[in-house]
Amino acid sequence: MSENGSLRRGRPGYDQQGILDVAVAAFNQYGYDATSMGVLADRLGLSKSAIYHHFASKDEILDRALDTALGALEGVLEESAHPDLVEGAAPRRAADRLDHVLRGAVHVLVEKLPYVTLLLRVRGNTDVERRALARRRAFDKQVTALVSEAQAEGSLRSDIDVRVVERLLFGMINSIVEWYRPGGAEDADRLADDVIAIALDGLRMPTSNRVEELLG
Amino acid sequence: MSENGSLRRGRPGYDQQGILDVAVAAFNQYGYDATSMGVLADRLGLSKSAIYHHFASKDEILDRALDTALGALEGVLEESAHPDLVEGAAPRRAADRLDHVLRGAVHVLVEKLPYVTLLLRVRGNTDVERRALARRRAFDKQVTALVSEAQAEGSLRSDIDVRVVERLLFGMINSIVEWYRPGGAEDADRLADDVIAIALDGLRMPTSNRVEELLG
Repeated sequence: MSENGSLRRGRPGYDQQGILDVAVAAFNQYGYDATSMGVLADRLGLSKSAIYHHFASKDEILDRALDTALGALEGVLEESAHPDLVEGAAPRRAADRLDHVLRGAVHVLVEKLPYVTLLLRVRGNTDVERRALARRRAFDKQVTALVSEAQAEGSLRSDIDVRVVERLLFGMINSIVEWYRPGGAEDADRLADDVIAIALDGLRMPTSNRVEELLG
Repeated sequence: MSENGSLRRGRPGYDQQGILDVAVAAFNQYGYDATSMGVLADRLGLSKSAIYHHFASKDEILDRALDTALGALEGVLEESAHPDLVEGAAPRRAADRLDHVLRGAVHVLVEKLPYVTLLLRVRGNTDVERRALARRRAFDKQVTALVSEAQAEGSLRSDIDVRVVERLLFGMINSIVEWYRPGGAEDADRLADDVIAIALDGLRMPTSNRVEELLG
């Protein structure tokens, strides 16, 4: 290992993103507190100073990792508000923008699974974690406002508290990190369709009571 | 504290259930591994031997705590299969039994919040934890079979994989432990209604596209 290690120190073979990926995997496996810069250096086959060349501290690695997940989620929200940035038909109604946000969140989760996993475990023990929690709350608040708008325009049922709707929807979406494995039977598009189908149309067959009543 | 402590040792004031409640709160706060019998004794104001009078080991406390959550969930499933044990109209269709299970699971979660929280954190590090995970898997499998039956009888849409349906439904329900606080705005009945409304009928207003198409 030491020969291999010194070889690697000669040509590290990790850019900043590569270090970040390995660090996030270690944080998820052992916990952030239990993962020292020494443990990271061992895992990477780098010296600690080689890591410090890219990141000023372990805290900065965490900050960058959480920003990866949060930035992607915020990007989805941003996109939904600017129809001209979205491919295809311009979504205008709040319900369509919500559809876009829910689908986008599933994609972010699948494509940045370890980063979102790390984000969901943050409990606010450090300044970096507290800033991440504040950004999560701001995101949740904007989605809640979107649900509220969709209720007001008459496209979503308004008999459920908007905060409960937002929490149950993201509870469902975030739970995907518990079982999703890349390369499994469901890809992100399929999974996003499933989430939308349940959240917006429900599992009950349209031939069931409600529509029968309307038709009858 | 020591005077108070010896006073308490004289008349413990905790039965088995009381010890269990305090232990589960400590496990959730510090983690099971980090909570020693000494820490528990301090929290209870009891001697370790007073705890051992009720439980043979810390493992047995965990076992009993996980059994509280699992037994309640299994009870809901059991109930749904025996219409004569359920109040009111006898549910017969698989979709009605699933409705009963989802509502019951929300009630168990709200009424035994710390116990379910502990159960959801189990990762299988000990025999007790592995047995609990096996019971969770058996429960999930039975719910999945119920979804499958409801699809076959034509009451639930069958274009989503039954395992994905089960995972998303319980992802939504289990996420409630993340934010629910007893005495909040939503009681268990209301929350169960909300979950059923989203899961079975969806958030989209029935006056929206699908029904308009059917009516048009």
